[in-house]
Amino acid sequence: MPSSETLQFHEPARFPRGFTCASRNVGLKPSAKDLALFVSDVDATAAAVFTRNHFPGAPVMLGRETIRAGRLRAIVVNSKVSNVATGTAGIDAARRMAAAAASEIGTTVDRVLVSSTGVIGVQLPVELIERGVRGMSGELQPDPLVGAYGIMTTDTHPKALSASVGTGAGAATITWVAKGSGMIEPNMATMLAYVFTDATFDAPTLDRLLREAVHDSFNMLSVDSDTSTSDTCAILANGHAGAVDEREFARVLKAGCIRMTEILARDGEGAKHLIRAVVERASSDADARRVAKSLVNSPLVKTMVAGADPNVGRLLMAIGKCFDCAIQSDETDAWINGYAVVRGGRRLEFEDAVVRDTLRQDVVELRVSLGAGESGATAYGCDLTQGYIDENAAYYSS
Amino acid sequence: MPSSETLQFHEPARFPRGFTCASRNVGLKPSAKDLALFVSDVDATAAAVFTRNHFPGAPVMLGRETIRAGRLRAIVVNSKVSNVATGTAGIDAARRMAAAAASEIGTTVDRVLVSSTGVIGVQLPVELIERGVRGMSGELQPDPLVGAYGIMTTDTHPKALSASVGTGAGAATITWVAKGSGMIEPNMATMLAYVFTDATFDAPTLDRLLREAVHDSFNMLSVDSDTSTSDTCAILANGHAGAVDEREFARVLKAGCIRMTEILARDGEGAKHLIRAVVERASSDADARRVAKSLVNSPLVKTMVAGADPNVGRLLMAIGKCFDCAIQSDETDAWINGYAVVRGGRRLEFEDAVVRDTLRQDVVELRVSLGAGESGATAYGCDLTQGYIDENAAYYSS
Repeated sequence: MPSSETLQFHEPARFPRGFTCASRNVGLKPSAKDLALFVSDVDATAAAVFTRNHFPGAPVMLGRETIRAGRLRAIVVNSKVSNVATGTAGIDAARRMAAAAASEIGTTVDRVLVSSTGVIGVQLPVELIERGVRGMSGELQPDPLVGAYGIMTTDTHPKALSASVGTGAGAATITWVAKGSGMIEPNMATMLAYVFTDATFDAPTLDRLLREAVHDSFNMLSVDSDTSTSDTCAILANGHAGAVDEREFARVLKAGCIRMTEILARDGEGAKHLIRAVVERASSDADARRVAKSLVNSPLVKTMVAGADPNVGRLLMAIGKCFDCAIQSDETDAWINGYAVVRGGRRLEFEDAVVRDTLRQDVVELRVSLGAGESGATAYGCDLTQGYIDENAAYYSS
Repeated sequence: MPSSETLQFHEPARFPRGFTCASRNVGLKPSAKDLALFVSDVDATAAAVFTRNHFPGAPVMLGRETIRAGRLRAIVVNSKVSNVATGTAGIDAARRMAAAAASEIGTTVDRVLVSSTGVIGVQLPVELIERGVRGMSGELQPDPLVGAYGIMTTDTHPKALSASVGTGAGAATITWVAKGSGMIEPNMATMLAYVFTDATFDAPTLDRLLREAVHDSFNMLSVDSDTSTSDTCAILANGHAGAVDEREFARVLKAGCIRMTEILARDGEGAKHLIRAVVERASSDADARRVAKSLVNSPLVKTMVAGADPNVGRLLMAIGKCFDCAIQSDETDAWINGYAVVRGGRRLEFEDAVVRDTLRQDVVELRVSLGAGESGATAYGCDLTQGYIDENAAYYSS
């Protein structure tokens, strides 16, 4: 599997040919940007995946319909109000938001994907969006960070990446724009991730490539184990660069999704560390994923990283509590930042001070070999600090 | 199902006939009690359930063997070192601990259940226990709090309850002694719960009654979703009160286990509130339990209670993320402390200030009706505060 670290990202990030974006304050928030618009100059092939939460927001319900055609011209996103648990009025508001954006850029309502993020259970003041979107087509710019600023909520910085597929005149570009701070969101802040490319793909292929990339990236991200009602990841391919090698595209797409996942985890609420949990020699992909997620979701592992303590017992506990996984407890080995700390299910003697020191690094890697098979998986998370409690205990929903 | 609130507990808690206990500092900790001994004056019928973690401690492995005979005279428990991930040397140490206690009270090694709680991966200094247990039989007392003190780790108070089964001369007593702060443990502090009764039951019946009671009580407790490698719940029935009505016994046993579960949840690390999540009208027992657990395990629900904010969106999120449960999202209703906040999947208008005020109570009840069937379950948890982070990020494992 390609590591995100072997991929060369553009500096600064840029859009593929034909994509632009704009963002504005339209009055949902006091002054910060609260509306973003991403546009392709021609209809793009498109695919998307959405939250599995049983209470999806109105934009997710509408988006599932819209994406069936496999074609998009634009994405319009507001923050502050998520338009979730708002009934049929919420669906109407989402449709009006799509129509307003479509009218502004000269396309039809069924070519616009809508996302909303923010508080749940409040009706969307859609007239502010209808009024606010007017004239945005005149502000469209080729810098993806402009759009990334427009979709931020609790993120501490805007998030955009881009990379090339192939070289020379036939090269295509992939650009990722996302907000966090997790799949799994403090304040229902929602994970939204949009991918733009000028490569040519048909919609079924694009859908398959997106699902494969998301499987190993955004779906392995956990900030706090809470799954938002609005999560959306969409990809648009406008074809301006023509066909590219599918394997190379898939490799770059997945590597960029993994890198963006790491960026989102690192910017989880209150986080000071990225935790990468690498599970090897599991008996199945499902087991590997479950153990890796168990490690990044364990409050005791998360606080151990926050406190820079090489607590081997907490690692064994988090592995061992995956009751339904095939785990050979006396074949289990573990490493913290490359240092062996468990062999055959027993704690090894190790240089405590040295390992403790490595836990102060920005990235903490917990590696586990289950000795049960040949499958592996990596999950991405962050430490649990007082910052998380501060932000979420102080949050007022009304 | 009997509520714990309808049961009259003795004040203060006392032992059934024939049970006594003692506790001491034997040098594992600097000065606090670190060894407890619970003794029946005759062999008692016994049953026990243990952690499902794949890395059980040596005392759990030994305990699974010991309990097969269905007979116990004593339980010996140390804190500070959990004797987990210690290999065959750990098993030997656990056996020596059982033998030392057996010799002290005049029984055989196979009649003594051992528990250990504390740090993982360190060999148990069993010679301190062998030396320290000598003479403890001369200190045995009829006050269960003496033993409860001896098994405390991060608990803020010792935990013992007792209640009667039946009335008059034929009445039996049930006594519960436990430590927390959860099934699911900060610092691997472990849940240990011991139940003592003078009622008469055969071992298979006792085992069934224990499992039924644990199913709705300790197994529905979550402080932080992390399952310890040492959890143990055992029951001893010495028969001094003779036979009692089985249904009445089962009712009292379960009610006391539920009450002790609430006490453990309320004393979870850093906790300021008990959260009781009541799920109704689920399509199955498994679904009801999963949704109830999802509510008490959600960091966003836990911080919402800590912050006294009636955040309806977080409740819907925590219900809706149970992907595999049958949830009728437009039939879902919810209440916070008895106030209706969701009807048919939509947020209701409610008196925000009034509901917010009730969230400052010691006990917060979140009730959900899924509109999908006739099953129900209740889970027990606590809020997530800076106290949890403080205790667990500052913990040094070595």
